[in-house]
Amino acid sequence: MIQSVGYAAQNAETNLAPWNFERRDAGLLDIEIDILFCGVCHTDWHQIKNEWFSGIFPMVPGHEIVGKVSRVGAHVTKFKVGDLAGVGVMVDACRHCDDCHSGQEQFCQISPVQTYNSTGHDGLPTYGGYSTNTVINEDFAHHISEKLNLAAVAPLLCAGITTYSPLRRWKVGKGHKLAVVGLGGLGHMGVKFGLAFGADVTVLSTSEAKREDAKALGAHQFVVIKDADALAAVKGKFDFILDTVAADHDVNLYLPLLRTNGTFITVGMPSAPFQVPSFSLSNGNKTVTGSGAGGLLETQEMLDFCAKHNIVSDIELIDIKDIYPAFERMLKGEVRYRFVIDMKTLAN
Amino acid sequence: MIQSVGYAAQNAETNLAPWNFERRDAGLLDIEIDILFCGVCHTDWHQIKNEWFSGIFPMVPGHEIVGKVSRVGAHVTKFKVGDLAGVGVMVDACRHCDDCHSGQEQFCQISPVQTYNSTGHDGLPTYGGYSTNTVINEDFAHHISEKLNLAAVAPLLCAGITTYSPLRRWKVGKGHKLAVVGLGGLGHMGVKFGLAFGADVTVLSTSEAKREDAKALGAHQFVVIKDADALAAVKGKFDFILDTVAADHDVNLYLPLLRTNGTFITVGMPSAPFQVPSFSLSNGNKTVTGSGAGGLLETQEMLDFCAKHNIVSDIELIDIKDIYPAFERMLKGEVRYRFVIDMKTLAN
Repeated sequence: MIQSVGYAAQNAETNLAPWNFERRDAGLLDIEIDILFCGVCHTDWHQIKNEWFSGIFPMVPGHEIVGKVSRVGAHVTKFKVGDLAGVGVMVDACRHCDDCHSGQEQFCQISPVQTYNSTGHDGLPTYGGYSTNTVINEDFAHHISEKLNLAAVAPLLCAGITTYSPLRRWKVGKGHKLAVVGLGGLGHMGVKFGLAFGADVTVLSTSEAKREDAKALGAHQFVVIKDADALAAVKGKFDFILDTVAADHDVNLYLPLLRTNGTFITVGMPSAPFQVPSFSLSNGNKTVTGSGAGGLLETQEMLDFCAKHNIVSDIELIDIKDIYPAFERMLKGEVRYRFVIDMKTLAN
Repeated sequence: MIQSVGYAAQNAETNLAPWNFERRDAGLLDIEIDILFCGVCHTDWHQIKNEWFSGIFPMVPGHEIVGKVSRVGAHVTKFKVGDLAGVGVMVDACRHCDDCHSGQEQFCQISPVQTYNSTGHDGLPTYGGYSTNTVINEDFAHHISEKLNLAAVAPLLCAGITTYSPLRRWKVGKGHKLAVVGLGGLGHMGVKFGLAFGADVTVLSTSEAKREDAKALGAHQFVVIKDADALAAVKGKFDFILDTVAADHDVNLYLPLLRTNGTFITVGMPSAPFQVPSFSLSNGNKTVTGSGAGGLLETQEMLDFCAKHNIVSDIELIDIKDIYPAFERMLKGEVRYRFVIDMKTLAN
């Protein structure tokens, strides 16, 4: 076993705090990674607070991990010591079900393993990236380009792939009008990818304060959704709406903004069910769809695309001891646009 | 003006009863049709009872119309006197908006005109097919093959196109597993088209009584949804679910039956909104979509496809005086599978 230090929640009521724990030794096909940076995802908060389902405690959150390979198992071919490596939302899968075979390991039907708050194939709990190191099968780690700001790459492993994947699957690009709802960690990546794919991008936000930011990101239009006239002006205008809002909200505000055959894509995972009138779908052949992360090949494709097009997340780098003020600002939608923990602040 | 006799509701509280009214004379581009048969759609009931929106009374329902051309305007080229003609859910549109240009006149953004309970471009109310004759611009009438049982063709104009259109748009066919929810007027057409397109078809029904019927229609499997074991056995199995149920129901019973990237298509127009958890969409990249009727070209394509493949609706032909017992059985889901009014019973 190897020694690790993490920031862990001992249960849903306690705050994250330093915790010494062990991880498995790197097996023949595993790599050991010294973690440099880990992004702070809304999901981390949901899970340490047990908001989604009964969690496994102690819990070390974090699934936007960038680090350096410090050890490789004897049969590892994909990485060598000193390489950069990234880890996203999953660390294992069965590899033989239909979903694994079709490159959608994130939906593995038999034995999916999440990066934390999950049970590995060895029967032990998994611990995430708010920690000094990790051990992972080489196939579930991704190559990271040295060209980019590594701290700003970390959020690509979740916020990046979660927005890249549906925009690719629905072939969003040139000639399409794309609206992105919510300018946060996911939303600002949606804007960047939408622009990179050639779409005309509008940001829909509850906050006038985001107008300049949207413009700075390159969005073509900005609409404050509380402005009824501005909203009416974009009725029936969008081919796609990428809804990144994590708080509960009314989908019926957005469905009328789709043109005929338009598609509403939710990636924000709000807790309350959407209320979707069948008329809103049938009248105009409209579609409501969701998307969850991405598969292994697609995640590497996204990272390579980002390296080629110089795309990273806009981040605020923090000391891990400031994680609670960071959570607070994240929950208020005040981060621009992703907190990333500098993991050397944990070792110190 | 020409004289017409219809079965009309004078208001939402009164029963349909014979009513003498006038229709416009056929203009240069219009045809006059002597109506032979008109299908009875669930929509007719919703509208005469004002269940959807405030209706225009007196109301003559009916939008599954087959008849014979009795008069043609001077500039009509598509029909001649004596031809068969069909009319579906719409009788006019602006012809120049994006939706009209793309062959989706049923979603015309400027000036759509429904077959009844709507206002024509002349400012007068439209009256439907529970009547002796009608007048319509030739472009909005369809050619009907003489090969088929004409009474059984009538439901194709609504139930037929409403199921044909989404199955075509989503390219349902060979290699796909399709579930059809509800074996009624729409559902039995969904089964017929699904089979004709080469899909493996399963009927999901609340009623064991429909098992033999499903088999007789050619469905490969039949599942009673109240049978928890049978339902569990088809979890994650379907590429597509065509939901034809008009009564309020829980979509969450069906979403788990979709495989990854599967699509749930609603065409039943239930009144209450669907409760759709975002997790049910994101976990497996699942899609919920709706579909409304079809455009002019597509409706003719569907009628031609039916003529070629010998597809008609399974019907019970009724005397118009029996419309209320028919409505009652329709509301109970007891019709196999569509009532069609023999319109000569109105003239007598």
